[in-house]
Amino acid sequence: MGRIMQKVDTLIITGWVIPVLPEGEVLENHAVAITAGRISAILPASRAGELEAAETLEMPEHALLPGLVNCHGHAAMSLLRGYADDLALMPWLTQHVWPLESQHVSEEFVQDGVNLALAEMLRSGTTCFSDMYFFPNITAEMCLQAGMRAQITFPVFDFPSAWGTDADDYISKGLTLRDDYKHSELLSIVFGPHSPYTVSRQALEKIAMLAAELDLPVHIHLHETAAEVTDAVALNGERPLQTLADIGLIGPRTQCVHMTELEQTEMELLAVAGASVIHCPESNMKLASGSCPVAELQAAGVNVALGTDSAASNNDLNMFGEMRTAALLAKLSSADATALPAARALSMATICGARAIGMQDQIGSLEIGKQADLIAVDLSGLESQPLYNVISQLVYATHASQVTHSWVAGRNVMSERLLTALDAETVKARAQHWGERISAGRKTS
Amino acid sequence: MGRIMQKVDTLIITGWVIPVLPEGEVLENHAVAITAGRISAILPASRAGELEAAETLEMPEHALLPGLVNCHGHAAMSLLRGYADDLALMPWLTQHVWPLESQHVSEEFVQDGVNLALAEMLRSGTTCFSDMYFFPNITAEMCLQAGMRAQITFPVFDFPSAWGTDADDYISKGLTLRDDYKHSELLSIVFGPHSPYTVSRQALEKIAMLAAELDLPVHIHLHETAAEVTDAVALNGERPLQTLADIGLIGPRTQCVHMTELEQTEMELLAVAGASVIHCPESNMKLASGSCPVAELQAAGVNVALGTDSAASNNDLNMFGEMRTAALLAKLSSADATALPAARALSMATICGARAIGMQDQIGSLEIGKQADLIAVDLSGLESQPLYNVISQLVYATHASQVTHSWVAGRNVMSERLLTALDAETVKARAQHWGERISAGRKTS
Repeated sequence: MGRIMQKVDTLIITGWVIPVLPEGEVLENHAVAITAGRISAILPASRAGELEAAETLEMPEHALLPGLVNCHGHAAMSLLRGYADDLALMPWLTQHVWPLESQHVSEEFVQDGVNLALAEMLRSGTTCFSDMYFFPNITAEMCLQAGMRAQITFPVFDFPSAWGTDADDYISKGLTLRDDYKHSELLSIVFGPHSPYTVSRQALEKIAMLAAELDLPVHIHLHETAAEVTDAVALNGERPLQTLADIGLIGPRTQCVHMTELEQTEMELLAVAGASVIHCPESNMKLASGSCPVAELQAAGVNVALGTDSAASNNDLNMFGEMRTAALLAKLSSADATALPAARALSMATICGARAIGMQDQIGSLEIGKQADLIAVDLSGLESQPLYNVISQLVYATHASQVTHSWVAGRNVMSERLLTALDAETVKARAQHWGERISAGRKTS
Repeated sequence: MGRIMQKVDTLIITGWVIPVLPEGEVLENHAVAITAGRISAILPASRAGELEAAETLEMPEHALLPGLVNCHGHAAMSLLRGYADDLALMPWLTQHVWPLESQHVSEEFVQDGVNLALAEMLRSGTTCFSDMYFFPNITAEMCLQAGMRAQITFPVFDFPSAWGTDADDYISKGLTLRDDYKHSELLSIVFGPHSPYTVSRQALEKIAMLAAELDLPVHIHLHETAAEVTDAVALNGERPLQTLADIGLIGPRTQCVHMTELEQTEMELLAVAGASVIHCPESNMKLASGSCPVAELQAAGVNVALGTDSAASNNDLNMFGEMRTAALLAKLSSADATALPAARALSMATICGARAIGMQDQIGSLEIGKQADLIAVDLSGLESQPLYNVISQLVYATHASQVTHSWVAGRNVMSERLLTALDAETVKARAQHWGERISAGRKTS
């Protein structure tokens, strides 16, 4: 009697499978199967013959791992990569970024900028990202076209922009967008109040109420610099985290971005509340904003995820580099070389990111039943030799360009480094067009 | 009457030429000519027709810049990449690196390890490096075979190794090697006393005397960690820099590697002496050794160069990453986002490196008459768009894999990412062989 074979859509046989959960595990010569967009099997390569696959890929010198989750950025700002560097946060924002945005930001700007960011993120192993920018409706469309998973936060400010007039208008437009994509498998639309210093207490209270009612995440820049905290203390008599906690905005759905300034009691507050912290080490270093105490937060029990921030302050969207910098910076700033070891950095870029944005049941690790968001990383090059420890190599010695294949919900969005749903030449031409237009604007202004 | 055209060997016409001197200069649409291994012309692309070139390369989307100078490393230790991570300097050295070295280091180990490092360095834009390791005679041979320029420091320790028995023996072997290569155009052989805590005062005094007599540079690990300094104070009643200064070892030929612990008076001492500091930010971060005060040293007038250190503590030999990390770390550690701007980071990786090793008249900038040590970097990719500022893009948003061509003394050592004088497959196979051998040794020991 013949044995009935399990049918799968795609079978990827690789040298190493890194499931991320349990942390540090490496499965040598293993295969992962995808069926209907989800992970349907993880088994030794020697047993791959038990499956009947419509498509089989053999990658004996690749590692297969969960797609990386970039928990903070402003995708469209990729059009400002290198526009103004070597400046501190406030002069950078107020003298360069905001004036330029008020002159140029439009649906077209966001479309072209987001596509540039999507191409770069997919080419560097990110399969899910969180975004905060004007025209989130355009960002949502572009993500679906490119096959990218995203948490799209709709921005809320007190002041007007090309997308909205005031806090109420931003909130209203954002909630409409949320309704439009309520049933999307790839997108989640959540609150993105910019910061406690750009959104009034009244608007933050409204957001707290609506977020609780709708069970929606809130993503906010918080304690990015020491000056932000001391200014708030001077103005309100308390630190911004305390203000948000008073309003009821610090809870398990809250994503606190940056947090370079933290006292021990604040770490405990975050831990008790179940809030996540999004650490953006390269942007914090480049803007001299400070350093988030990652090891101490993790010791206190806080979930810490990773983000690149935008390419205007990084200047790339490369999560491989961000993992490495996070590990190196944590060791230096805690004066402990054992702090934030490689496997923990990889967790931050995957499962901790998924937890931060409430997607931990769907993505962030390779487990049967989870969405098939995967990347394959080529470890055959000279730069990966010798190979004592695959996870160490991935975190400390891997260039983003070694990512050769990516899948989101089982869809192959990059193959042999070619994007399947984005036309790289068009993306490049549009980016160059904006570069010329913005440069011309600067010369004449 | 016909005009006599200037004949050149190679003419490289590129989108951007970055001469490095003057700092920050970008020459758009320019060409560089090479004649007999030296730079013979730098002129606008529109005037390239004035030259009669045996070979012409047109690279309209590339930047052409001086080859990078990696001022500190231990090339053969590339065979230990990822062998022991997430450990502090002393347990890493004494419990992992030194035992492994005493078991495995041989001429064969050095040959294979150096070739792996040479391949990685050339593929990431380095055309000159400083090395400190056992069997420097083998390192020298491998450099000449691969066409790489190098300062090879012969190590001096008090204790025996596979290469020498005691300080006198290391010095004697090193000076013999120096005689062998006295007339080499690519190699300079100099003193490499490991550190004040591994070389006796008596041996350091002998090195000081010989270095002065022979006018030879001295390259030494110094003030790498706070513990090194406090231990020395406990033992000798003074800080190691003071001890070396007393001995006469701190002068214009001295290269002080690491220097994470520095007082203001020590910076002034270094400036007055004309000594150089070699900053290795990624290794210092990974080993939690501390942070060299680069901006403060430069303000005091000290020449600061860059090094990766070995791939065992980095874990790559990528000077593009090192420039970026140096800039980011300087901004963070001096709490000033304007510190160490991109153009300055590029200078540190080129002309400051050349100065540190006494080669500033030969390399480190693109100037007529200098050695033709050049690299071409492809800026056509999506990750380089838009392109407002080429130097910012090179420092903050360039992967090492964008280096497509390299020349050392006019010899093309990499073309379209293929090494011309190293067989990549053999280098990889030898690295894998050592990986297996060392792993097997670890399992049975």
